[in-house]
Amino acid sequence: MDMKEYLKANAQMVEDRLNELLPDAVVKPDAIHRAMRYSCLGGGKRLRAMLAMEACAAVGGNREAALDFACAIEMIHAYTLIHDDLPAMDDDDYRRGKLANHKVFGEGIAILAGDALLTYAYEVLSSMAGVDSKAALRIINEVSTACGSQGLIGGQVVDLESEGQEIDLLTLEYIHRHKTGKLFSAALRGGAIIGGADEDVLAELSLYGENFGLAFQITDDILDVSGDIAKLGKATGADLRKGKSTSVSLLGLEEAKLLAEQSVDKCKRYAAKLPGKEHYLAELAEYVLKRDS
Amino acid sequence: MDMKEYLKANAQMVEDRLNELLPDAVVKPDAIHRAMRYSCLGGGKRLRAMLAMEACAAVGGNREAALDFACAIEMIHAYTLIHDDLPAMDDDDYRRGKLANHKVFGEGIAILAGDALLTYAYEVLSSMAGVDSKAALRIINEVSTACGSQGLIGGQVVDLESEGQEIDLLTLEYIHRHKTGKLFSAALRGGAIIGGADEDVLAELSLYGENFGLAFQITDDILDVSGDIAKLGKATGADLRKGKSTSVSLLGLEEAKLLAEQSVDKCKRYAAKLPGKEHYLAELAEYVLKRDS
Repeated sequence: MDMKEYLKANAQMVEDRLNELLPDAVVKPDAIHRAMRYSCLGGGKRLRAMLAMEACAAVGGNREAALDFACAIEMIHAYTLIHDDLPAMDDDDYRRGKLANHKVFGEGIAILAGDALLTYAYEVLSSMAGVDSKAALRIINEVSTACGSQGLIGGQVVDLESEGQEIDLLTLEYIHRHKTGKLFSAALRGGAIIGGADEDVLAELSLYGENFGLAFQITDDILDVSGDIAKLGKATGADLRKGKSTSVSLLGLEEAKLLAEQSVDKCKRYAAKLPGKEHYLAELAEYVLKRDS
Repeated sequence: MDMKEYLKANAQMVEDRLNELLPDAVVKPDAIHRAMRYSCLGGGKRLRAMLAMEACAAVGGNREAALDFACAIEMIHAYTLIHDDLPAMDDDDYRRGKLANHKVFGEGIAILAGDALLTYAYEVLSSMAGVDSKAALRIINEVSTACGSQGLIGGQVVDLESEGQEIDLLTLEYIHRHKTGKLFSAALRGGAIIGGADEDVLAELSLYGENFGLAFQITDDILDVSGDIAKLGKATGADLRKGKSTSVSLLGLEEAKLLAEQSVDKCKRYAAKLPGKEHYLAELAEYVLKRDS
């Protein structure tokens, strides 16, 4: 299967399963379920879900075994997007080419929809078929640490504190590593734990994840200055308007590109060492570098 | 030990353990950790924690075995208070006699502090010493359902939608049962699972929890019309000012009091049937009826 077909087929599988897992829009109270489905369905590259399933395959497991885990990670990702877009945070009106959750449902329901997606992710994580209790508990623990105040949320805190300020490269790295990198790594490690990975392999995947996150964030910054608004589904130049420092503003476009390429090279080297044969982790890293949205 | 001493000693034990568990205020990024500690420490009756520990004792377990679980429940409770107080929700400036979280740290950090407390609760739930993996996983699953879009959050959604509107008794009951009752029941059931309860005992505890929640909410409504502001630590008459229907406005003060008393009587009957001998579940229900804050 070529990469484009593969990405499409897997994104559809994740979409279908999310559609099954999420409470139906008519379930009472329906406002919250409509809001949860609005932000969790119908869009997104499902990169985190794919990392989870590919990591499972890359350690010799069956990628479908990690599907529910992958969906839980996508729910967590959706919750962070809803909360990040709120007026008190990044104050964005659009996301993935459609109105932000709070612009459709109001701020109160948007906050609750984020809370509910996070909570529901744990409901899914605690009832994954075919995953033994010890492994599930370890995954829940790792996901919680990765998403907590010294992980993903910590990154958002520093991002929030940095708005309108000049920041240095170290601070920017902290934000990237936490706000974006931690959930990538948690997705990879969780998928690999489901696939039965040993500690050495998990450590390799964490390194892959760090570099993947760096490449992803830099290309995000590059797309913000040079991307196609129609493909991105959001306005470009947003970082500049908000006075946000980015890898492009701090390093310059050329050096930022170089750093992204180096990170993807590292990802490929780590991917090549993994025990499973049939997986797309190298291709996923390459895709991140070349994406246009 | 008399009830007052017991309540004080247990609240202190919970406070001390929360203080140990929560990241220190100087840990980076410190704003989020200060905000988490601000709302989770230094106040509150710790009723949910006590229900958890008493339920463990009431089924023959050791109440200290449920201490970390009890703390996780208090973290979840603190997160709901922070988010409920936000301008987009109930818009309250004071909580437990001090400024609401967002009035001190700003809305952005308050939203993130709530998110982080919820996330950290799961980190604690997935690393409880002395609780086997299967039991821990079941507890995580039950807590998630209880706190989700058809549980606690669902109650807050209907509460939000009802503001400024006349609602009927059925809707008010839905709000109470979900917004308040679900977390009480989850606390009781989780503590009892740690104590090794069988399914019949868990079902009894759920009934105790439902009635406890009802009595709690009615006394809350009564205190809002007739409480002492100094003891409550918040303004009275808030429900009336906001046009909120309450059990007092819908039933009248006398009938509301009667319903609370009947609920507490039921709690005592359920408590008497539990296998453990040394526990305070009957007294806790009585305390809820007679509290002044």
